[in-house]
Amino acid sequence: MIREIPPRSGTAFVLGKGEILRVIDPEGGQVSDLIACRQGDPCEMLSNGRTFDYEETIRLTAGNRLWSNRSHPLLEIIEDSVGTHDFLLTPCSEATFRHFYADKPVHRGCFGNLAAALAPFGVEPDAIPVAFNIFMNVPVDAQGRIRVEKPGTVAGDHIRLRALDDLVIGLTACSAYDSCGGSFKPIHYAIEDRIP
Amino acid sequence: MIREIPPRSGTAFVLGKGEILRVIDPEGGQVSDLIACRQGDPCEMLSNGRTFDYEETIRLTAGNRLWSNRSHPLLEIIEDSVGTHDFLLTPCSEATFRHFYADKPVHRGCFGNLAAALAPFGVEPDAIPVAFNIFMNVPVDAQGRIRVEKPGTVAGDHIRLRALDDLVIGLTACSAYDSCGGSFKPIHYAIEDRIP
Repeated sequence: MIREIPPRSGTAFVLGKGEILRVIDPEGGQVSDLIACRQGDPCEMLSNGRTFDYEETIRLTAGNRLWSNRSHPLLEIIEDSVGTHDFLLTPCSEATFRHFYADKPVHRGCFGNLAAALAPFGVEPDAIPVAFNIFMNVPVDAQGRIRVEKPGTVAGDHIRLRALDDLVIGLTACSAYDSCGGSFKPIHYAIEDRIP
Repeated sequence: MIREIPPRSGTAFVLGKGEILRVIDPEGGQVSDLIACRQGDPCEMLSNGRTFDYEETIRLTAGNRLWSNRSHPLLEIIEDSVGTHDFLLTPCSEATFRHFYADKPVHRGCFGNLAAALAPFGVEPDAIPVAFNIFMNVPVDAQGRIRVEKPGTVAGDHIRLRALDDLVIGLTACSAYDSCGGSFKPIHYAIEDRIP
């Protein structure tokens, strides 16, 4: 069953060990922030730094794993029709809206959406880390400078991630102007059965 | 007064608003992992992702600020004789020793040293984030691949950071083989008075 995350919103759910999460960009040009923590022990949390350590790259795609702050792999990317994602930048928030879009209405952003969705699972807002920003297009130049560009996705692009343990997932349809090329669109996702 | 952090150890201390922390590589070729959190409220913690967001670069040097998970600037780099530091990788730990140096004795690493030094200030081990790895030389190639190379520092190289609020600082002399070019050396630091 395909579920929809409406524009500028988020959700959270359990993903059992071995289950596969498919995240789809139904229209193209949208970003989805993903957080993962251990079910029942949310202080074990996704870590960009531990992932960079063990995968030895900042560009994660099929074959790479996403690691926790306790050095356990949480998710493995098993399919990726895009190949461009970001794991450097934090979820957009009221503060980032004030900073980057001073002339536009403030929104709680992916940070607020993740905090609300993950609260029932015991995740504190201060513990929300850098998300794995699916489909987000953030080139880094030779001097280390960062730009946020429009995603290169087309309708139907997707990524599939297999849970390596029992996890709680937070997932959004991004709320920021730059990361989505100025538009706000939904994200689709599906939970697929364990591989037999 | 110059204080010494012995090889493969760490310390923690209060740095008052306006005070300046000078971190010195006394022999050359050493790395120092730095953590900062708000004094009395350690859940406000250094964040590489928020720093990359607001500074728009992964290469931090003089003029850049280091930001918290709550979008407040904690430290400003006011002088930097090196210009090469890392903010991508997590502190070395028992798990990273087992992963990268399977044939060598396990050490608690900068992670264990920071956890021990910061415990009296209320910082939980799970909350220790990616450190600002002073003098650490981690080139990222055009494909996003990461290498850990020997630091380019010479004896006396240093960086100075000004506290923008009342902070607790964790600071190490790094314990890992790769980041220090295979040797373990001390780190020196000094706390300088507020700028009048």
